Amino acid sequence: MSSERLIYLPLGGAGEIGMNAYVYGYGAPDHERLILVDLGVTFPDMDGSPGVDLILPDVTWLKERADRLEGIFITHAHEDHVGAVAHFYGDLGAPIYARVFTANIARGKMEEQGHPEDAVQTVSAWPEQTEAGPFSVGFLPMSHSIPESSALIIDTPAGRVIHSGDFKLDETPGVGEPFDPELWAEVSKDGVRALVCDSTNVFTRHPGRSEVEVGPEIEKLVAGAGGMVVATTFASNVARVKTLAEAGERAGRSIVLLGRAMRRMIEAAVETGVLGYFPRVVSPEEAGSIPRENLMLLVTGSQGERRAASAQLARGKYMGLELAEGDLFLFSSKTIPGNERGVIRIMNQLSEKGVDVVDESSGLYHVSGHANRPDIERLHAIVNPQIVVPMHGEHRHLREHAKVSEQNGRQSVVAVNGMMIDLSGNAPTVAEYIETGRTYLDGSVQIGALDGIVRDRIRMALNGHVVITVILDEEDEPLGDPWCDIKGLAETGTSNAPLVDVLEADLSQFLMRANPKTLRDDDGLEDALKRIARQTAQSEIGKKPEVTVVISRMR
Amino acid sequence: MSSERLIYLPLGGAGEIGMNAYVYGYGAPDHERLILVDLGVTFPDMDGSPGVDLILPDVTWLKERADRLEGIFITHAHEDHVGAVAHFYGDLGAPIYARVFTANIARGKMEEQGHPEDAVQTVSAWPEQTEAGPFSVGFLPMSHSIPESSALIIDTPAGRVIHSGDFKLDETPGVGEPFDPELWAEVSKDGVRALVCDSTNVFTRHPGRSEVEVGPEIEKLVAGAGGMVVATTFASNVARVKTLAEAGERAGRSIVLLGRAMRRMIEAAVETGVLGYFPRVVSPEEAGSIPRENLMLLVTGSQGERRAASAQLARGKYMGLELAEGDLFLFSSKTIPGNERGVIRIMNQLSEKGVDVVDESSGLYHVSGHANRPDIERLHAIVNPQIVVPMHGEHRHLREHAKVSEQNGRQSVVAVNGMMIDLSGNAPTVAEYIETGRTYLDGSVQIGALDGIVRDRIRMALNGHVVITVILDEEDEPLGDPWCDIKGLAETGTSNAPLVDVLEADLSQFLMRANPKTLRDDDGLEDALKRIARQTAQSEIGKKPEVTVVISRMR
Repeated sequence: MSSERLIYLPLGGAGEIGMNAYVYGYGAPDHERLILVDLGVTFPDMDGSPGVDLILPDVTWLKERADRLEGIFITHAHEDHVGAVAHFYGDLGAPIYARVFTANIARGKMEEQGHPEDAVQTVSAWPEQTEAGPFSVGFLPMSHSIPESSALIIDTPAGRVIHSGDFKLDETPGVGEPFDPELWAEVSKDGVRALVCDSTNVFTRHPGRSEVEVGPEIEKLVAGAGGMVVATTFASNVARVKTLAEAGERAGRSIVLLGRAMRRMIEAAVETGVLGYFPRVVSPEEAGSIPRENLMLLVTGSQGERRAASAQLARGKYMGLELAEGDLFLFSSKTIPGNERGVIRIMNQLSEKGVDVVDESSGLYHVSGHANRPDIERLHAIVNPQIVVPMHGEHRHLREHAKVSEQNGRQSVVAVNGMMIDLSGNAPTVAEYIETGRTYLDGSVQIGALDGIVRDRIRMALNGHVVITVILDEEDEPLGDPWCDIKGLAETGTSNAPLVDVLEADLSQFLMRANPKTLRDDDGLEDALKRIARQTAQSEIGKKPEVTVVISRMR
Repeated sequence: MSSERLIYLPLGGAGEIGMNAYVYGYGAPDHERLILVDLGVTFPDMDGSPGVDLILPDVTWLKERADRLEGIFITHAHEDHVGAVAHFYGDLGAPIYARVFTANIARGKMEEQGHPEDAVQTVSAWPEQTEAGPFSVGFLPMSHSIPESSALIIDTPAGRVIHSGDFKLDETPGVGEPFDPELWAEVSKDGVRALVCDSTNVFTRHPGRSEVEVGPEIEKLVAGAGGMVVATTFASNVARVKTLAEAGERAGRSIVLLGRAMRRMIEAAVETGVLGYFPRVVSPEEAGSIPRENLMLLVTGSQGERRAASAQLARGKYMGLELAEGDLFLFSSKTIPGNERGVIRIMNQLSEKGVDVVDESSGLYHVSGHANRPDIERLHAIVNPQIVVPMHGEHRHLREHAKVSEQNGRQSVVAVNGMMIDLSGNAPTVAEYIETGRTYLDGSVQIGALDGIVRDRIRMALNGHVVITVILDEEDEPLGDPWCDIKGLAETGTSNAPLVDVLEADLSQFLMRANPKTLRDDDGLEDALKRIARQTAQSEIGKKPEVTVVISRMR
């Protein structure tokens, strides 16, 4: 038995916030039986991944060991935890376990991709446990900004591991189970080998606030509003959506849900019984005949997404509804770093319409779904693990979390994606470094982040693109002049002649003087033409474009 | 005289934060003599302006009236106020007036673009006034985050206008003149027709803090640091750079300035005498022989700019200096919305090196350079203008500023770029709407933001690019098969064959069946080939690429 080991291997989510995917293994080295905790996505941006639809973790390591994978356990239904299950189902094939609400969302994703829905198995909360090879896994209820978020209690021959999932310590979360310190103490009392723990808010030094605190403030705001009220939050924050809807109802307003994700989440919450009471909802069509001061719209797009309901309402009509002077728009949400521009764009468009915008800067209308530093420390104290393994954070979060743990006398380790940690010994050690990375869902295909495809797009965006066409006859002599097309480049440069004319003249001159050997050699000719085109563009317009050379030979 | 009027026309900076350019005119309609206040730039981003070097206001309206332009007055040396003077000098030609420090920076820009430095005239502070047609313009000292920022007192036949420039109310600004409420009361006592006023921080409800408050905190932080200390702030915030340097000196550290802008600004501040005392600076080479715990680097790149010193230090060695475990990196700056990703990237790279990062989130190490709402209201009260015209803000800022003014019983108007406001009457009225926009400096040429050039780049980045080459013989029959090149697209799609092969096969089939009329018509043929290529790509890889078709005819 001494040759067997317990390993932890993040393939995503450690060293970044997004696309969570954590492997646990137990057994002899290279023969461990494996489970995967969460399989999420992260979102592309124009800076680093233009044109990409979704970013998935690179799970090559796991695909190659799919025969050893006993199951996939999903802690909660946020996209960065469940978003990739359907995209990798064909490669991994293992059963997917989740609680009822999360399973409902996961099944919707499986259906969309044409996979069998019954690959997702619904499990109950702790004390139920699911056997998965050497592991026995239970879902321990935990509060977060989505119903039914759970920590996982992972019992292994090397002891108990608790994987916190995303969490906050909220004893009055509105919807979903409250944090239950006694239950947590109970499951921890016989000793916990490792607590693998959410690091998101480790830099926030005050204790977190409860979801219940925003209710009265939102109610006051909505009660005082004159025109139509629109509120946006994460659709998956069902408790918040409920709070908003109830504030609307109390102010005598009919509730409209706008945006696919908003309707989908509320539907799932109703179907699975996690929601409890929710005010009656009217359709956008019905809303047309209700006075605007009696309406409250709950809409998607709190992060400024261009296609979401909030952006569409800010630009103009959406589903027959239109904002007007004196309306109120509430962002009951935090802007995730990187999304500021999109959110600010919407705020300004609303301002142009005379709509009053309220955001969370006052601290009244939003609370975070993640544990702040004192809360993290409180959980450490309750669980009292032998080792704290920070996860769900950028490098700076993991490092700070490890520091905090060590300052409190606990062992810790900064384990980023690809670092396989052996948790069997007295201290955590790095067993191996695994190559990890990102896979892009691009249209309907998966491509590697380092395949050069997206790099070429970025280069075309930065530098523009010149296409050169050259035709050579049977004797490898140029047939006519070379032809240039430009895309994304200024049409005229310093010489005041069209850029394509200058390019064609310079290339033509080169071809006329080129020796037969150069003209016979496709690669050499291509390189030479590229070099000339780039030089000419540099002197004409001060840019070195990307160049594609098409050489056609008549032989 | 009743047919003459006083106009205000923002060409940049109103409805955005950046590229300030405000026109004032006086005279008969369409014959006004004009002055321009500030001529700045704004910075491109990958989302909206990939590959662009700088964004300049579109000053076409002013170019067409250059014969009526009496002068350009620069309030201060920030890039969004002075950055475009040299780029438009050839078109506008008017004399440029600025105080000594600002003039020094402006002259550097003129020199870089090969313009005569003496086009920039140095003027003294109020009560000196410069005659410019019907205007008499004085520079009234005002505190801001750069030395020598000034409001402009613009005397016109229709009364006095005060253009605030960027400002805060700081009576202890460290470097530069303090805000002098008595002087402001004095210049306002005979009545001010309009206060054209900075709106940046109108949403911040507490009074602004003085520059002097950060000194002791920075000193404490630096004194307690063990390894090397690196601090970044805007290079132009000379007061802060001085505070940082003095904190370093008091802690027994030698000061190194890294980054061109940092050295340029301190040099200008020394040359023009605005700086006063500054600790002795050592070169990066000298620093090599000083123990790291005796070093303090002041570096550019507080906004995460990839090429700046901070980013380079975060990645590796820079000028022979390298960060190590236990060093301290201070962001004595605020992250401008949109720059979060770049700043966070650096923070994580520093974390990987074991460097401790401190930012302004504690509120201890940075204060804003702009007036908060109570400060704005205080200035309104001192100046007591007939009209408040909010400027230097996005639409939401201008609207809020106008609201605040009206709530306090003052007339106001939300005037965005292109709205010409008549300030002669009892109430401000919109005289005309002028077409405005953005000009891109792209490499060495200026292009219009709406020319379609940058739009094509964005499309290539989002959709990839297919190049189709077809050769037709003398009878307009295809000569060989069509040829495809792809850039920025997955190489293989759902059929598992190379995408180019599938494209070529589909295009070839079309060409074989095409009727002679289609083959003779370049435009029709191009459209058809594009459509097929997009359809094929859509079914193979789920993307509709940009397509360039090159048709070569042998006739």
